[in-house]
Amino acid sequence: MSKYTATDLSETIVALSTPQGVGAIGVIRMSGSAAIEICDEVFYGKKLSEQASHTLHFGTIRDGSIIVDEVVVALFKGPRSYTGENIVEVSFHGSPYILQKGLALLIRYGARLAKPGEFTMRAFLNGRMDLSQAEAVADLIASESEAAHGIAMQQMRGGFSNEITALREQLIHFASMIELELDFGEEDVEFANRADLIGLVQNIQKLIRNLLNSFELGNAIKHGVTTVIAGRPNAGKSTLLNAILNEDRAIVSDIAGTTRDTIEEVINIKGIQFRLIDTAGIRDAQDQIEAIGVQKTMETIRKSTILLYVFDVIALTPEEVAQDLQALQQDGLHILAVANKMDKNPYIEPYDFASEHLATTQIVSTSALNKMNIEHLQNQLYDLALQQQLSKGSTIISNARHYEALEKSNESLDNVLRGIDGGLSGELLAFDIKESLHYLGTISGEVTTEDLLGNIFGKFCIGK
Amino acid sequence: MSKYTATDLSETIVALSTPQGVGAIGVIRMSGSAAIEICDEVFYGKKLSEQASHTLHFGTIRDGSIIVDEVVVALFKGPRSYTGENIVEVSFHGSPYILQKGLALLIRYGARLAKPGEFTMRAFLNGRMDLSQAEAVADLIASESEAAHGIAMQQMRGGFSNEITALREQLIHFASMIELELDFGEEDVEFANRADLIGLVQNIQKLIRNLLNSFELGNAIKHGVTTVIAGRPNAGKSTLLNAILNEDRAIVSDIAGTTRDTIEEVINIKGIQFRLIDTAGIRDAQDQIEAIGVQKTMETIRKSTILLYVFDVIALTPEEVAQDLQALQQDGLHILAVANKMDKNPYIEPYDFASEHLATTQIVSTSALNKMNIEHLQNQLYDLALQQQLSKGSTIISNARHYEALEKSNESLDNVLRGIDGGLSGELLAFDIKESLHYLGTISGEVTTEDLLGNIFGKFCIGK
Repeated sequence: MSKYTATDLSETIVALSTPQGVGAIGVIRMSGSAAIEICDEVFYGKKLSEQASHTLHFGTIRDGSIIVDEVVVALFKGPRSYTGENIVEVSFHGSPYILQKGLALLIRYGARLAKPGEFTMRAFLNGRMDLSQAEAVADLIASESEAAHGIAMQQMRGGFSNEITALREQLIHFASMIELELDFGEEDVEFANRADLIGLVQNIQKLIRNLLNSFELGNAIKHGVTTVIAGRPNAGKSTLLNAILNEDRAIVSDIAGTTRDTIEEVINIKGIQFRLIDTAGIRDAQDQIEAIGVQKTMETIRKSTILLYVFDVIALTPEEVAQDLQALQQDGLHILAVANKMDKNPYIEPYDFASEHLATTQIVSTSALNKMNIEHLQNQLYDLALQQQLSKGSTIISNARHYEALEKSNESLDNVLRGIDGGLSGELLAFDIKESLHYLGTISGEVTTEDLLGNIFGKFCIGK
Repeated sequence: MSKYTATDLSETIVALSTPQGVGAIGVIRMSGSAAIEICDEVFYGKKLSEQASHTLHFGTIRDGSIIVDEVVVALFKGPRSYTGENIVEVSFHGSPYILQKGLALLIRYGARLAKPGEFTMRAFLNGRMDLSQAEAVADLIASESEAAHGIAMQQMRGGFSNEITALREQLIHFASMIELELDFGEEDVEFANRADLIGLVQNIQKLIRNLLNSFELGNAIKHGVTTVIAGRPNAGKSTLLNAILNEDRAIVSDIAGTTRDTIEEVINIKGIQFRLIDTAGIRDAQDQIEAIGVQKTMETIRKSTILLYVFDVIALTPEEVAQDLQALQQDGLHILAVANKMDKNPYIEPYDFASEHLATTQIVSTSALNKMNIEHLQNQLYDLALQQQLSKGSTIISNARHYEALEKSNESLDNVLRGIDGGLSGELLAFDIKESLHYLGTISGEVTTEDLLGNIFGKFCIGK
């Protein structure tokens, strides 16, 4: 691992690790080679440097003759610690005054205030976790739903790293075969069978593409899935919105509108947040003002992940529904059609869901008015958001940096394929393969720069 | 110790012990006979019930197959713990989402949410600290200055309890002598020499009075020392106020005025907060409006602990200063005279500080305009606030409940003295002595009621 140290590892760092404010307990964490010795200078109780790792010690922290607090010190000796270094965590009474005094005292005795994320950066630099795992720590702390928590936890526990490592290993094998050829320079041998190599690269690219495709979902789970409700006037859109929200009133909250003057309602379905946006009815734009309304709705749809297209089963024919769906379709937009007002329909004049026009459409029939089938609709929304990904336990990426690195790695592999196709020399093929390896390496932190580290850990809170 | 249990000690309680909000670490604390077993149900790592006390264990907290978090568990086995019971403290990542999940999980497995202060109440009920020590925990967490911190720390560490215990022991000795007499009922013996007893009671009352007297200071330290600046017009009061504040601009803040439309400025001098109040100039009230102004100033002075009387050394004679001081004097008010505008005076026409009129007055000479001697003035203010008390290391009480109990105990002792004087029977004397003992007992919690405990611990934060 290359060690671009954005931090001087010889220094001992200290920070308040619990949130600011008054509480029962406040924890000050100190990490570094001198952490235990510094604490021993101000801790009155057992001599910490003579105690075993992973033990707890009651005593007082003193500034000369003044007792700053009665505390419990948790002792972790490196490398069996979060950072891999010696760590002491001092549990003070949760008084901002006392914690300030405690911090100042430890700094006076030789520690320096930690920078944001510096504990976790040290964990990375000391090989306790790779970079994507370190990044997941921040995601985990920020997670606000079951799904976001699940993705961050999977990433922190190395699920994503394992996939990347597997990809890299295949590429390294590939590269070594090519390099073997170079050793035999003049002899025109081919250890790396080109057809096999093409198959291998294509395989790797397929895996990368799966990860790239998961990004949209991963990002949606992290920030909420934008779901727009659209349809012709009087299809029952607003009633449907209320029905969906009613089912979970306890976890509904209003979010101040965007510049479009819409109010987004947020609903949490089984751990995924959906941002529901109601729109004005869509109809053929017969005058200027209506045209603007339709344009606005279309803009909203373009920015959304899921479209709930609502139609009135009494008023629209399957053909009209199909026309609307075709007009609303966008690249990357998932459409769920909602056949509404079923309360007025089913036994009188059965709607032709099996019509050729609707054969490929996913339809849920509801009565928003009677709240019929609303729970089923929520389940469909949830499934749509998860697609097949989460349920299969496959890896989901939610980090733009990882997405970019995967994309660049993929481009390098495109070059490899083009090179093989064009009969490029092994030397040049090896160059593109190494570039691809480089980008994959930035994800796990095998390749890194001080800027990158500063950028990643600067977004952490202090004390982590 | 009487055990009026406001809490069912058989239940295991749990709470978030660190402040609400996002942070690096959030600690959930669980206490009770089943604390370790409940944690074992959801903790994957070593089996906690088989581990030694005061040890730390890394692992995961799981809800079925879902990993809630990677955690470190701190294990304390009773009675060597804060509450005297088994305690586990689980350090989660500081995500409100995760902490909520963790709390819910532990509750699902048999803990119940702790009430405010319930951990500390259990510490009291289990004899880990007396009641005044438990009360000091809340004071300690709320402390915002060095002095308030010092008083709370002294009290938490038992300094105050020791004084009370000493008083009680003397009284108990007293009572036992009296009771010995009762055993010999008819024989008219006096084991308790009345003259000796009077001396003893007087001695105890002196100690109680010292504690009672310390309350005003203790309370001032806890809430800030009200300091009023008064003097004749143009003495330089406002300039002096600014000069005092200027010296410590960094720790000055405005506090919204009271109904008197005054702005109080707060300054922290060596750890004690002073609430400085400027007033209109005092002069002989020649018309109705000015009389009202003077009346208001006098009211403000009545509510203050310290008066900074500012006078112009050019304009006023020692005799006039003495007259002003006499007019301003109040019971319990500490006056510091400030001879201002010394920049205009000293070498031209020396002011007669040794004048018989000023012989008993504490005077600081300043030039508010040139900020001359302002730091010395601050030191004098600090010393005045501390009087001789803190520096002597004597006990200071800051709790109204303790003040009341001491006062009632003192009244009972008055009755004892009156009883001896009036030749009251030993039986009746014993009654008053026991009443005095009772009130002292309420301070340390030897005597307590469920209401009292609820009242005290209800003011704590949850998790302490």
